[in-house]
Amino acid sequence: MISDFDIIIAGTEIISKKVMDMGVNLKMISRVGVGLDGVDLLSAREKGIAVSYTPDAPAPAVSELTIGMMLTLLRSVHVSNMQMHQGEWKRFFGHRLSECTVGIIGVGRIGKGVVEHLSGFNLKTILLNDIKNSDDYDGYDNIKWVNKETIYKEADIITLHTPLTVKTKDMIRRAHLKSMKHDAIIINTARGGIINEDDLYAVMQEGHLSAAAIDVFNHEPYDGKLIEIERCLLTAHMGSMSIDCRTEMEIKAVEEAVRFVKKENLQSKVPEEEYIVQQGCRL
Amino acid sequence: MISDFDIIIAGTEIISKKVMDMGVNLKMISRVGVGLDGVDLLSAREKGIAVSYTPDAPAPAVSELTIGMMLTLLRSVHVSNMQMHQGEWKRFFGHRLSECTVGIIGVGRIGKGVVEHLSGFNLKTILLNDIKNSDDYDGYDNIKWVNKETIYKEADIITLHTPLTVKTKDMIRRAHLKSMKHDAIIINTARGGIINEDDLYAVMQEGHLSAAAIDVFNHEPYDGKLIEIERCLLTAHMGSMSIDCRTEMEIKAVEEAVRFVKKENLQSKVPEEEYIVQQGCRL
Repeated sequence: MISDFDIIIAGTEIISKKVMDMGVNLKMISRVGVGLDGVDLLSAREKGIAVSYTPDAPAPAVSELTIGMMLTLLRSVHVSNMQMHQGEWKRFFGHRLSECTVGIIGVGRIGKGVVEHLSGFNLKTILLNDIKNSDDYDGYDNIKWVNKETIYKEADIITLHTPLTVKTKDMIRRAHLKSMKHDAIIINTARGGIINEDDLYAVMQEGHLSAAAIDVFNHEPYDGKLIEIERCLLTAHMGSMSIDCRTEMEIKAVEEAVRFVKKENLQSKVPEEEYIVQQGCRL
Repeated sequence: MISDFDIIIAGTEIISKKVMDMGVNLKMISRVGVGLDGVDLLSAREKGIAVSYTPDAPAPAVSELTIGMMLTLLRSVHVSNMQMHQGEWKRFFGHRLSECTVGIIGVGRIGKGVVEHLSGFNLKTILLNDIKNSDDYDGYDNIKWVNKETIYKEADIITLHTPLTVKTKDMIRRAHLKSMKHDAIIINTARGGIINEDDLYAVMQEGHLSAAAIDVFNHEPYDGKLIEIERCLLTAHMGSMSIDCRTEMEIKAVEEAVRFVKKENLQSKVPEEEYIVQQGCRL
């Protein structure tokens, strides 16, 4: 499909060197969204293909969805809803968000949005982790920068907002999951593969973790075993799927393509650090 | 069951005059929770039976659940979860809470909690309605007191936090539902019967309203027709079911009973206005 085109407006499809080799006219990739795990940036650079993306647009939709998932999982709303629709009435006890320690791994646009939404819930403790600590939350008594191991051990709710890179691929495996509280909750609205799916399935089958919400998968559409686990909330990669955010993502990606055609300055070129991340994977 | 007892710690069971007639020794009802729709206060007074309740304890759990339901319904998380567990992958578009006008009918302990949680979402408009307007939100540009009809007409999300009284019973019937936006969302975590269940079922079957979340029902355990409607999120009267709130409700109800036995002053007697409300029904 790619062979004739000068520019592609790209979703999460894999755009590898092989794909680019087929796109003999390809000069620009304008990515709808923020994740670059599917785009081989270094091959694009070698071929002189410009790559832009829309990093800000999807964030508000993802951070809202994440809060909804926290509240749903804490109260087993997803389980009750399935049971009620099958004619079964069972009342579940749960926990309040305000009483929980929330751990956020990846404090970029989306992670920061999650922190902002949490401000209306008067949490005692929010634990943050990213590649490096920042001073963004200096002066907030209830917000602390910690290492990932501390989050695994202390958080009641763990939510992931990192990109998928060679460093975050399979970041959370069996041992990490087992180091979490027995009734912890884990949420992945970032990218499939950051939590090892087989390990998550295995530990939940063993009764570990009180619930999970998974919106992103190794292979999409998802057809794996997590569907067997009632307390695992599953959604179809819908993090960015609010009408306002999708509209903005798509308009911005097209505007950038138009700029490219008109030889205007691009406004949202993928920054150098993203190339460096992928360089790190090749080494 | 009631005949021998001096005091009952009561759930949502109906305690009518007939029930009290059977309880020849009954001197006190200590109600776990806030709703008094099940207790015939005037008969209790005539018989000299003291009635206390725990109005503050359940509120935080209910207001959190309500926010979770808003975010779930806006993004069709409940529908996607059911489909995913059946092996179906379908991505739904939705709306962001921040873009919505939220209407709150009943601005007591729970409604106020909802407003507080919404503070982290930067909403453009929150519409409030109660028996009388208050000055609680003076100075908040995005919060307005309006009549119920304005909420029905203008809100994208309508959530109910009133008690069940003769005035709120069947408060929302077919005509009210039809006056709401075609893609409005309605949430009832208050009491069954405030929204007429048959009318809700009928308008949703006709395709009106984008979603609903119903936690409370005319008859519980619920066995009605709303289970046929996939976009209707159903839960088993779980509003107050966080461990911390249930614990507090139950401890407070027992402490009040102990005070009664020890002839100490009661601390959470049902206030006079609740008797006046029921007086209004008798007339």
